[in-house]
Amino acid sequence: MTFDYPARRARLAELLPAREVPALLVTSPVNVSYLTGLSSSNAAVLVRADGSALLATDNRYIEQARTLDVPSAEASDVAGTLMTPGAGIEAASMSVATYLRLGEGAVPGGGPVPLGPVVEVLRAVKDEAELAFLRTACEITDQAFADVVERIAPGMSERDLARLLENRMAELGADKPAFDTIVAAGENGAIPHHAPTDRELRAGDLVTMDFGARYRGYHADMTRTVCLGAPAAWQREIYDLVAQAQRAGRHALTPGAGADDVDAAARSVIEHAGHGGHFRHGLGHGVGLEIHEEPFLGPSRTGRLKDRVPITVEPGVYLPGRGGVRIEDTLVTREGGPELFTKTTKELLVL
Amino acid sequence: MTFDYPARRARLAELLPAREVPALLVTSPVNVSYLTGLSSSNAAVLVRADGSALLATDNRYIEQARTLDVPSAEASDVAGTLMTPGAGIEAASMSVATYLRLGEGAVPGGGPVPLGPVVEVLRAVKDEAELAFLRTACEITDQAFADVVERIAPGMSERDLARLLENRMAELGADKPAFDTIVAAGENGAIPHHAPTDRELRAGDLVTMDFGARYRGYHADMTRTVCLGAPAAWQREIYDLVAQAQRAGRHALTPGAGADDVDAAARSVIEHAGHGGHFRHGLGHGVGLEIHEEPFLGPSRTGRLKDRVPITVEPGVYLPGRGGVRIEDTLVTREGGPELFTKTTKELLVL
Repeated sequence: MTFDYPARRARLAELLPAREVPALLVTSPVNVSYLTGLSSSNAAVLVRADGSALLATDNRYIEQARTLDVPSAEASDVAGTLMTPGAGIEAASMSVATYLRLGEGAVPGGGPVPLGPVVEVLRAVKDEAELAFLRTACEITDQAFADVVERIAPGMSERDLARLLENRMAELGADKPAFDTIVAAGENGAIPHHAPTDRELRAGDLVTMDFGARYRGYHADMTRTVCLGAPAAWQREIYDLVAQAQRAGRHALTPGAGADDVDAAARSVIEHAGHGGHFRHGLGHGVGLEIHEEPFLGPSRTGRLKDRVPITVEPGVYLPGRGGVRIEDTLVTREGGPELFTKTTKELLVL
Repeated sequence: MTFDYPARRARLAELLPAREVPALLVTSPVNVSYLTGLSSSNAAVLVRADGSALLATDNRYIEQARTLDVPSAEASDVAGTLMTPGAGIEAASMSVATYLRLGEGAVPGGGPVPLGPVVEVLRAVKDEAELAFLRTACEITDQAFADVVERIAPGMSERDLARLLENRMAELGADKPAFDTIVAAGENGAIPHHAPTDRELRAGDLVTMDFGARYRGYHADMTRTVCLGAPAAWQREIYDLVAQAQRAGRHALTPGAGADDVDAAARSVIEHAGHGGHFRHGLGHGVGLEIHEEPFLGPSRTGRLKDRVPITVEPGVYLPGRGGVRIEDTLVTREGGPELFTKTTKELLVL
């Protein structure tokens, strides 16, 4: 077993007294997996303040559960089976239907207690075994870009290019794409979350590729924008601006920095150039077992970065009807300065 | 635009009086997409009993939203923005955190009203445009199997085989795999939801492949079990048994049939052979915009099938430590008898 699951549960148990609950009923599948090693669409684990735990899953997964270093019980209604009076529940992911069922017939003070992120806060800080998997995910991502970039040419569709990147990542050993690949050419580049279409790449287009590999469950995330043919003045201008903002954001990534301050470091560069209204999303997000996880970087985000937190820095400038640029890396915070995991050049590639 | 979204919203509006709500706040992303055409990770639509609707999404998706045939508003807190007193909410998918936020400061009788499946019931019955996409998804799935099956050989790992199937589906035009491909060789075949490993295929193995293509958002689902080398008597016995049960299940698929009765038609075959304890999951599930959706076939499932409902029939027999067989098709209910969408042979292939 690669990870020390009992140690993870022990760290969680230590957080419970401050949340004033005797136990946490963990139902988010990724959190269950993080705490036990079981990947299942129907499982839950109750972690008590004394560090003991009970896992529940249904008959499809119970054989796997029994091989793990945590006691387990077979059940269809996994949350109902594990619920104990006054246990905390994960409010961000538990459904209303489950919550209402757990509360039925609860004694006063004994119903479920909705809590915000708890396991997610633990998960934000990675150990070196986790970072090794994420580093490999980023290496696959870099290599796929290097292998595909020279094949980018006018006439290819956004969809074709997305498929080339995804297939190459699979060949290089990815579990799967970390998320649905974005390829946005020309005017589509002004839509931050554009889904690839049959639009063909044309000379004069800026082409944004936002993609990454998942490796052993860990998600890489990288964006590069390239130019088909010599860039027009406006294209060069916004590219250089985004590159400058991205550099400022990366340099601000340090343990102890505020999530809003890191965002501001990059955003102020874009605002000073008069493009503040063209950058309307947060600067970045944690990556790990999920593609978007704690912490988040944005103007109104609170909290301070810790050490060993993988996170993206991804400013963009989007000009409606014309096009856009986004540059994104996955990095990890380190006491001595951030470690860059995605290493593809950030010079403007002119193809 | 391919689909008639206003007609879908009108059908939904007709269901609301019986649910005793003036409006439904739809927050499930797939249901929002079904009712409006907007694919977004942060969107909601309020559909009122008079058939009018309002869509909300954040600044990343608002440009796309404005191209649609429904009024839209920009908001970060999409549910909070759309909530009206006494509106129904989707209890199976809304989070506790959102629910509690909506209920804050609600006037008596004016808080959110948790409802079970509403849009999901509408979605179960497909129109011919939807069925055409699903048919293509199944054709890609069949073709990928045909192209890959002759390459299956001892020495290849479960993971290799899964990747071959997924890559071939992508080459054939799939959006992506409909779900994480299952390849389970030998003793792993006893685990219904086994995830592919580095275990190599060996002579004498039964090898189960459960996979499918997603095409234009519609999910195909097929399982076949093949044998590497001449089957042993026990392998042939359980294969023939599962094939017989699967046939009985398919023949029971008719508009008006009870979800439990269809399950029983297949399950009784396996029970009569003394293997009831080795088939411990439901017989099948609807497919469409989700890989698992209404209706579900199982011993305690209620409700009756309607016409034009795509659904899987997938009995299995799993012998712990030895191996297993599952045979699954995607079909659609029709008045004249079910239409088979996945057409790969169900004869035992000996490779």
